[in-house]
Amino acid sequence: MAGRNFVFVPGPSNVPDRIIRSMAVQMEDHRSPKFPKLIKEIIPGLKKLYRTEHGTPFIFPSSGTGCWEAAITNTLSPGDKVLASNFGQFSYLWIDMCQRFGLDVQGLDVEWGTGIPIEQYADILRKDTGHQIKAVLACQNETATGVASDVAAVRKALDDAKHPALLFVDCVSSLGSIEFRFDDWGVDMAVSGSQKGLMLPPGLGILCASPKALALQSTAKLPRCYFDLKDMLATNPSGYFPYTPAIPLMYGLIESLKMIEEEGLDNIIARHHYLAAGARAAAIEGWGLKLCAKEPKWYSDTITAVMVPEGFNGADVIAQAYKRYNVSLGAGLSKVAGKLFRLGHLGDMNEVHLSAGIMGAEMAMLDCGIKVKPGSGLAAASEYWRKNPQPSGLAIR
Amino acid sequence: MAGRNFVFVPGPSNVPDRIIRSMAVQMEDHRSPKFPKLIKEIIPGLKKLYRTEHGTPFIFPSSGTGCWEAAITNTLSPGDKVLASNFGQFSYLWIDMCQRFGLDVQGLDVEWGTGIPIEQYADILRKDTGHQIKAVLACQNETATGVASDVAAVRKALDDAKHPALLFVDCVSSLGSIEFRFDDWGVDMAVSGSQKGLMLPPGLGILCASPKALALQSTAKLPRCYFDLKDMLATNPSGYFPYTPAIPLMYGLIESLKMIEEEGLDNIIARHHYLAAGARAAAIEGWGLKLCAKEPKWYSDTITAVMVPEGFNGADVIAQAYKRYNVSLGAGLSKVAGKLFRLGHLGDMNEVHLSAGIMGAEMAMLDCGIKVKPGSGLAAASEYWRKNPQPSGLAIR
Amino acid sequence: MAGRNFVFVPGPSNVPDRIIRSMAVQMEDHRSPKFPKLIKEIIPGLKKLYRTEHGTPFIFPSSGTGCWEAAITNTLSPGDKVLASNFGQFSYLWIDMCQRFGLDVQGLDVEWGTGIPIEQYADILRKDTGHQIKAVLACQNETATGVASDVAAVRKALDDAKHPALLFVDCVSSLGSIEFRFDDWGVDMAVSGSQKGLMLPPGLGILCASPKALALQSTAKLPRCYFDLKDMLATNPSGYFPYTPAIPLMYGLIESLKMIEEEGLDNIIARHHYLAAGARAAAIEGWGLKLCAKEPKWYSDTITAVMVPEGFNGADVIAQAYKRYNVSLGAGLSKVAGKLFRLGHLGDMNEVHLSAGIMGAEMAMLDCGIKVKPGSGLAAASEYWRKNPQPSGLAIR
Amino acid sequence: MAGRNFVFVPGPSNVPDRIIRSMAVQMEDHRSPKFPKLIKEIIPGLKKLYRTEHGTPFIFPSSGTGCWEAAITNTLSPGDKVLASNFGQFSYLWIDMCQRFGLDVQGLDVEWGTGIPIEQYADILRKDTGHQIKAVLACQNETATGVASDVAAVRKALDDAKHPALLFVDCVSSLGSIEFRFDDWGVDMAVSGSQKGLMLPPGLGILCASPKALALQSTAKLPRCYFDLKDMLATNPSGYFPYTPAIPLMYGLIESLKMIEEEGLDNIIARHHYLAAGARAAAIEGWGLKLCAKEPKWYSDTITAVMVPEGFNGADVIAQAYKRYNVSLGAGLSKVAGKLFRLGHLGDMNEVHLSAGIMGAEMAMLDCGIKVKPGSGLAAASEYWRKNPQPSGLAIR
Repeated sequence: MAGRNFVFVPGPSNVPDRIIRSMAVQMEDHRSPKFPKLIKEIIPGLKKLYRTEHGTPFIFPSSGTGCWEAAITNTLSPGDKVLASNFGQFSYLWIDMCQRFGLDVQGLDVEWGTGIPIEQYADILRKDTGHQIKAVLACQNETATGVASDVAAVRKALDDAKHPALLFVDCVSSLGSIEFRFDDWGVDMAVSGSQKGLMLPPGLGILCASPKALALQSTAKLPRCYFDLKDMLATNPSGYFPYTPAIPLMYGLIESLKMIEEEGLDNIIARHHYLAAGARAAAIEGWGLKLCAKEPKWYSDTITAVMVPEGFNGADVIAQAYKRYNVSLGAGLSKVAGKLFRLGHLGDMNEVHLSAGIMGAEMAMLDCGIKVKPGSGLAAASEYWRKNPQPSGLAIR
Repeated sequence: MAGRNFVFVPGPSNVPDRIIRSMAVQMEDHRSPKFPKLIKEIIPGLKKLYRTEHGTPFIFPSSGTGCWEAAITNTLSPGDKVLASNFGQFSYLWIDMCQRFGLDVQGLDVEWGTGIPIEQYADILRKDTGHQIKAVLACQNETATGVASDVAAVRKALDDAKHPALLFVDCVSSLGSIEFRFDDWGVDMAVSGSQKGLMLPPGLGILCASPKALALQSTAKLPRCYFDLKDMLATNPSGYFPYTPAIPLMYGLIESLKMIEEEGLDNIIARHHYLAAGARAAAIEGWGLKLCAKEPKWYSDTITAVMVPEGFNGADVIAQAYKRYNVSLGAGLSKVAGKLFRLGHLGDMNEVHLSAGIMGAEMAMLDCGIKVKPGSGLAAASEYWRKNPQPSGLAIR
Repeated sequence: MAGRNFVFVPGPSNVPDRIIRSMAVQMEDHRSPKFPKLIKEIIPGLKKLYRTEHGTPFIFPSSGTGCWEAAITNTLSPGDKVLASNFGQFSYLWIDMCQRFGLDVQGLDVEWGTGIPIEQYADILRKDTGHQIKAVLACQNETATGVASDVAAVRKALDDAKHPALLFVDCVSSLGSIEFRFDDWGVDMAVSGSQKGLMLPPGLGILCASPKALALQSTAKLPRCYFDLKDMLATNPSGYFPYTPAIPLMYGLIESLKMIEEEGLDNIIARHHYLAAGARAAAIEGWGLKLCAKEPKWYSDTITAVMVPEGFNGADVIAQAYKRYNVSLGAGLSKVAGKLFRLGHLGDMNEVHLSAGIMGAEMAMLDCGIKVKPGSGLAAASEYWRKNPQPSGLAIR
Repeated sequence: MAGRNFVFVPGPSNVPDRIIRSMAVQMEDHRSPKFPKLIKEIIPGLKKLYRTEHGTPFIFPSSGTGCWEAAITNTLSPGDKVLASNFGQFSYLWIDMCQRFGLDVQGLDVEWGTGIPIEQYADILRKDTGHQIKAVLACQNETATGVASDVAAVRKALDDAKHPALLFVDCVSSLGSIEFRFDDWGVDMAVSGSQKGLMLPPGLGILCASPKALALQSTAKLPRCYFDLKDMLATNPSGYFPYTPAIPLMYGLIESLKMIEEEGLDNIIARHHYLAAGARAAAIEGWGLKLCAKEPKWYSDTITAVMVPEGFNGADVIAQAYKRYNVSLGAGLSKVAGKLFRLGHLGDMNEVHLSAGIMGAEMAMLDCGIKVKPGSGLAAASEYWRKNPQPSGLAIR
């Protein structure tokens, strides 16, 4: 088919050409004297990305899902109580995993379109004076609904209650795109993956563990082997791995971290906000539609989930965008299936690239009979972009 | 810098990922028994592309400019008279080359924004009863002004005058994008390059020669060696080259011809027209601006040159599009410097990809103070695209 | 550093350039309507590779180790008894994993340099009339010692004892290189990885499960989530995955399976034998050294482990080969550390490529003071190759 | 076909993976404000490579042959006398080109296997008191016979005769591999290409011109346009080109020059000598054969041409090496067709890589009935390498 496929699913995100190049490597011995150079280039960059001094990053040949598993199996035992909330497909799936591993999940059902119910968490933690709750799960950015939650506030709730529970954060679709502070927020396990803000293909699960979390390895009774941090801790410090690592992705990760360093993490976060604000302007002011995220405080800067008007099916818009315009939008999942389409704008993205996605969605909506005004999406988005300071990462120097 | 650079210069055009992949080859012996397989895969595809049965395609490690030189030095002698017209930078440069080689050029100065003056050509040819004119030069698509000319009409003028002059066509920015018929139009030398409709990087000059042109080698007195077709004719038929060919580009060319075959040349031409019509709608109906091409009959389907309003400098728009939006537009050259910007839409392109270019140009114009209505470009373009049948190459099957 | 690094570790193996190219892909939506095409191209090829009609192949973003875990956690429950034998680092590690998961391993300690003790297995199975043993583990090719075992004989022992235990095979370094017959040998779980005979980078764990093994999912009590086959079975048949798959490696796998189809699995197996026989001739006849594999029946066709003479350290040879000749040899692990070096010759390999490895090892030995005769390794290897029929995959047609 | 094709033709040479990666670039505007960065990174590296302060390097989308043409057409006029000698296919072809351009070539026929006849040159120049000779041609490394000539001595002959003729050197297969000193040797035009010591694919012609050569542009009457240095001089200094440059190769050239800088030109030259000495030891001491180069003073360090014994045909050896062992050797051309095979060892090469080529040639000779002793080639080569200091570029630090 002629022309480029434009990918606006909220991951896998676009991989910059220089990262694609960096991964086109021939194999090498992963036990050679030179191999440790790789991990030694990677770890400091990951620590900066997580904004941590005392955390320990790990990389697994896996998806982010694997690191959800690593987070719980390395710290908890069957029957342990965890506090979590379900406000989208991905926050739900982590709860489901905990249950499969025999954890006792207190899972709050929260309206989709909102995020972590801080007050409720605070209340529950305050009342849990016996400290039955061993871990609190926080999905920082719910990819299914385009909702970002306030992880710092979860930490505050824990601190206010003087509660010792571990804080586990799913930052799969936020790390490297939305502010995340491992140390400042007292995070114990932060789960991510390669295919979002890191602009890599899928295939690497990325995890950061606090000393407190690592100390629980000896008591954690959940069985584990592939995701056992012990084996990583026994080999990583000298530069090796317990089993063959995903070599090309490691070279890609080095390049990705180099790009992040070049642009600057603060600039990247500012850029994501600026681009997302344009996308929201397109949807709300341009097209006159609603977002799935109920209030501005829930707005995600990596993904915009746009509600289609009553009487229309979001899946039709997505199908039309794909079939006629070669634009991949994200679907509504589970509870919100058919009600929305999602426009991911994370990673390697700029104004005109995002314009292609907005235009694809607009033309697809019009083709489906949704009466938005032609050109209105980009009229609004471009006005936002033109009238606001451009983040430094976008300007050509 | 974050985000993709969007290239809308009228060449080099975007190279599809599968072509980039196809060229990442290790070297091989260009005199091996297997090497002839390459050229044998290439030649039939090039003949289909040129729509020729009796023409002979040649590929040189060179730019298209090199093939201009091959065309004239293999057929003409110093002092030979050629008829040509100058209506843009590239039609001018070919005339300049002829003069440097000592040819006697009758060069008609034509208003930039128009193309080959068919009536004048017809008149001159009719009057040249002594057949002093040995060759007629026709620049099918003047990249500098976005003007397409009627090559079939040039052939008709020659035929009507029963004039034996050779017909040389520069189809660098039209071959594989705009209708070109080597045999039907009685073309004798057709000059192209890799970096336009063939969607390859620059580095290959491509030429097609008629038997009539080839027969002139023995009498042509212009000196030549690198571009001597004799050496190619002595080696190509058995699959080899007189000097080391540009191997990676040959693999890229095989892939490019495969893509062209898959989409179908007629479909590709229809797609270029459809996309170009959208771009023109954006400029004329959306922004209310004029094209450099004076009349619809001159409109090029590979490149749209948009005049900026009086009092503005096209170079400022181009600079702003590049610096702020990472969009590469083509500049006004020579006579039209500062008066326009050019939007190339040839090769691997679809509606949303082109939308990025239109949006980049629109935002840059607004930033420069040109009062176009925000969103108006894509409102007009998208209405055109949505209301017209989509060429089959764009639909996902 | 100048010159190519020659990799002769027994995995990751050399990745052919066309596979490297095939993986240099831009991202796409793994939930798009076109995505199922990928897995549908992969599964039939994997089934042919495993020589199975009724087995179900799975691919995980993981290493082969992950599939060891998938094999046991999807079929067994804590306390289940498994029969295994330890005759090298990798057969040992699988036992270790079973123990970590609370299985009751009857692990036979066998002399390193030999393989699965068929008689002992037969005896134990015959005596296990209560069928306490739920699974028998077989490491077909022990990469640490260069020993291949007879999996068909294990099946026969099970059948002779009319024993219903599952048969689990680690064919990580044999699949696609050494004869493996999933159906004929009644294998229930066959574990492999991308970075050996499949000639891909590491990053994919590959598993094949029998209907009998799949039927145990409901009763298997070992906890699992990332490696839960249930989620794969719920999504794979329609072409999707429970979490983001490792997209580039899937394209690489398609290309790898295409190459295997082109050469023919039988031809590939013959080629591995032919090359390995040359390597063994170099070691035994040329250099006069011993292999770690005690008898010809244990010889592996993917990896040759060469014992260094008394008084020398294999690690010195490996270090010298790497530092001076840029040749990566495999080290002796655990019990055989220092006693040998390993030369991997699996995957994309031919006579002269292997010659580079043999020469690197020979020069390194000489540099370390081991008195082998210069040129003797390749004298013997080349005589073997020249005097034996060349497998069809190596001849240029 | 299984296994890597090993290329030992004397160009195109092996392209290191990092250079292949560097060229997998998307297109960009070659008139953008950033584009000049490319040539500005290239020129200083090329000057170091040529060891010149006052020379001006040029790069053309062409083969090296194109730069032969550039050298003569930019400096000479029809009828100008040039002194040259023919001792191989490539020195012959340059003479042929001069004749096609109407130059008056005094071409000395010298025995193939020897090189530039310094005494004869000296004599002729001394006697040419009227300075009829305008240029002296010197093919530094005759790729067809593996003969290197003494360019410094040609300069001395010119100086001794106080002769003002230009000195043109073909250093296509020597630049970046064998000592070359543009300034010290008073070279006026030095012609090279991308596909030899620069380790790039073919597609770039590389030329270096002295101020004296450049000053002749206004008087040189040979017609030229594509290869006219005037257009390059008008655009290169600001970072641009008169026509679209071969963008991917320019990125490759940047990477190549970086690799040359990293290893160090002196080290590279030493490495080529060391590897070549091993290849010669294989041929002469190991196999007991003769080289085409008659005496050690003619030995080339980039290519070894080995004479096959009477009664055998070198072409058979080459065909067998290719068909059975997938090794590409260079053929005997013209006068030496059938009498030899050529082993190129220039560019990215180390001991074990070259071993593969030596072994391929040895096995092919044996298969053809040439009675060399199995293993003897590498016995001799490896003894040379092991007993001589390894150039620093080969050692892993």
